[in-house]
Amino acid sequence: MAIKTPYVAVDGIVQLFDEKDNFQGIVLIERKNPPLGLAIPGGFVDIGETVEDAVKREMKEEISLDVEIVRILGVYSDPKRDPRFHTVSVVFICKAYGMPKASSDAKEVKIFKLEEIPFDKLVFDHEKILKDFINR
Amino acid sequence: MAIKTPYVAVDGIVQLFDEKDNFQGIVLIERKNPPLGLAIPGGFVDIGETVEDAVKREMKEEISLDVEIVRILGVYSDPKRDPRFHTVSVVFICKAYGMPKASSDAKEVKIFKLEEIPFDKLVFDHEKILKDFINR
Repeated sequence: MAIKTPYVAVDGIVQLFDEKDNFQGIVLIERKNPPLGLAIPGGFVDIGETVEDAVKREMKEEISLDVEIVRILGVYSDPKRDPRFHTVSVVFICKAYGMPKASSDAKEVKIFKLEEIPFDKLVFDHEKILKDFINR
Repeated sequence: MAIKTPYVAVDGIVQLFDEKDNFQGIVLIERKNPPLGLAIPGGFVDIGETVEDAVKREMKEEISLDVEIVRILGVYSDPKRDPRFHTVSVVFICKAYGMPKASSDAKEVKIFKLEEIPFDKLVFDHEKILKDFINR
């Protein structure tokens, strides 16, 4: 049986809080690999791991934070959302404390207040995802 | 770049209504192919289609109904949920009118009131999914 389906990825909208539980902003990355630009951190799901484990692993790898999952925002699957190939992304709303640090596919991490997100710099369909998040 | 991710599937919890909008029950199928047993209708997502289009196509193919999507119930991705291989399923709550008819992978369709679902006959993790649906 030859089954061909899109790739599965996860992305994490990480809401960063300080130790007094004050919202600091959300964490975005400057991508190191094409497509270059600003992005929600995320990556592919490995065979053998759950989507929840995948998003926690990717947040640890890319922005060096241990995140808590709040809930799923949505599943984004437009065949054209990734210019490279068809990728279905499960997008999680997460919560984290501490200071993010760039690694893996992230060249730099940036923290944005919701009203300061530079939507025109976002890659993939991340502008739509973040607007869905803000208007949820 | 060799990317390997789990397969992506969709399943539809189809709430069936009569023409007066009275809830009739949810539609389950008796599977024609292994694993045999009772299941929520569903199938793999094709490359090039959205998960929303996939669940509408699968409901049409398996139970001959045009469904309306209500919302996503959840994403089920336990590596052991499918005994054949790792499949991530996006589960949609749907709504439909009319009479379901079995085709494709469905040997028979059955309509169950929520309190009459025979949970012990369900394959995959569909018992858990339907309990999550009932307790949502």
